[in-house]
Amino acid sequence: MREQELSELNPIILKIGGSVITDKSGELAVRMQDINRLAEEIRDANVKNLVIVHGGGSFGHPIAQKYGISSGFKQENQRIGFAETHHVMTVLNGLFMDALIWREVPAVSITPSSCIMTKHGRIQCFEETPLRALLKMGFLPVTFGDAVLDLELGFTILSGDQLVSHIATRLNAKHIIIGVDVDGLYDADPKVKKTAKRFKHLTLEELKKLKGSFGKTTACDVTGGMFGKIAELIPAIEKGIPVKIVNASKPNYIYKTLKGERVEGTLIEKE
Amino acid sequence: MREQELSELNPIILKIGGSVITDKSGELAVRMQDINRLAEEIRDANVKNLVIVHGGGSFGHPIAQKYGISSGFKQENQRIGFAETHHVMTVLNGLFMDALIWREVPAVSITPSSCIMTKHGRIQCFEETPLRALLKMGFLPVTFGDAVLDLELGFTILSGDQLVSHIATRLNAKHIIIGVDVDGLYDADPKVKKTAKRFKHLTLEELKKLKGSFGKTTACDVTGGMFGKIAELIPAIEKGIPVKIVNASKPNYIYKTLKGERVEGTLIEKE
Repeated sequence: MREQELSELNPIILKIGGSVITDKSGELAVRMQDINRLAEEIRDANVKNLVIVHGGGSFGHPIAQKYGISSGFKQENQRIGFAETHHVMTVLNGLFMDALIWREVPAVSITPSSCIMTKHGRIQCFEETPLRALLKMGFLPVTFGDAVLDLELGFTILSGDQLVSHIATRLNAKHIIIGVDVDGLYDADPKVKKTAKRFKHLTLEELKKLKGSFGKTTACDVTGGMFGKIAELIPAIEKGIPVKIVNASKPNYIYKTLKGERVEGTLIEKE
Repeated sequence: MREQELSELNPIILKIGGSVITDKSGELAVRMQDINRLAEEIRDANVKNLVIVHGGGSFGHPIAQKYGISSGFKQENQRIGFAETHHVMTVLNGLFMDALIWREVPAVSITPSSCIMTKHGRIQCFEETPLRALLKMGFLPVTFGDAVLDLELGFTILSGDQLVSHIATRLNAKHIIIGVDVDGLYDADPKVKKTAKRFKHLTLEELKKLKGSFGKTTACDVTGGMFGKIAELIPAIEKGIPVKIVNASKPNYIYKTLKGERVEGTLIEKE
């Protein structure tokens, strides 16, 4: 495929956060009603050139954390932990795929660990040909945060957010939609602090300034982890790809956003 | 990774036929008892450098056939058929992975459609780095026949047998074990013809002669389809990789074969 053909795809990248489709307070606790509702919204919006990336929530995270997968291979017993983490992610992905295909959406999963290797946690090689070919053929590719092999660490965790940024940049995405379980990016964790203020619009410059004050350590992220995920998208925003953060737990917000209708949320643009 | 390092892997490639782990007379009919038994045999044999490839049986085949996936993209309604075929194969694979991981086998699935594209049905590009890295890290990679994208046909079916031959050849396998639901390769279908005679040993030359008489058309394959699958392995046999065909439906046959013990079956060698 020639570069020109590829850039013509301009897909929309839709991220569905793990907290939307799973109950993070449990373990392997799926929110099947939300998966089914989202599958309907995605079917009804009927967007051409869409790529979906979903997170791990209560599937991937607890097991990855238990075995310390993200910091790499250090001891024998992590091997089964890596296998388990990958396996439960394919199970969660399977539930999403089932909901989509059952509704006649021609969705095809892309398994990160089968085609991506990282180096110190960053995507080093990604065999994208099948992803691009799926889009060109009119399929809906669905991928997800996964346990992957790492050239330096042995293995690690590849977040859905890094995947979103990478795919958006490589495929010259039209825009990125980040579906979360709150109404956007706030100056504090809206689940904890009732007076937290939502940013309605941010420029890249404003985002970078916030990074200086919010993003010093992940542990102290006052936004409840949201800011760290959004900071991952900076390379895509720098390329001119706008990011819309919307509440995917609220019915029809994803549908409306896919259709180009405005819903409350946070819009981040280069300028 | 350098070529020398790679050739040192010399993995055993174990194919588990779809008729062993599913009931081909049904649809989506899994033989869970056999999957669990095989997972135990594989765990107990504890072979280093093993790659498993499994077939589709009553998962992949009926849907692929219904939509004519193997002959490529011809009409719109095949798109959902391709998505379904791939999805049910990941479901069958998930059941196998579950049985292995539950028994503490560090098995990691490799999804063909995420890393392989074919051309006129033959593997054209296969991003093997993750598979090789998994082996080097001490994991058990498990892959399977799948619906894949094809550079000429749009999409097609990649058989587990082609995968076995390709992986064995590329990774310089020690030997190939083909687990089926009969005792080996016969001169007729042993399920139909009681007097069918089993080949105990075949050389490449003898196999090729048989191909002349058996393999003229798939529809007329007197061996009940077995010969066509074995003929797919000729490139690997030509490279000097022996093939053992054994009955994986009989308890301990796979265990014993993995351990290097002799069981009744068919052995095919270059000379």
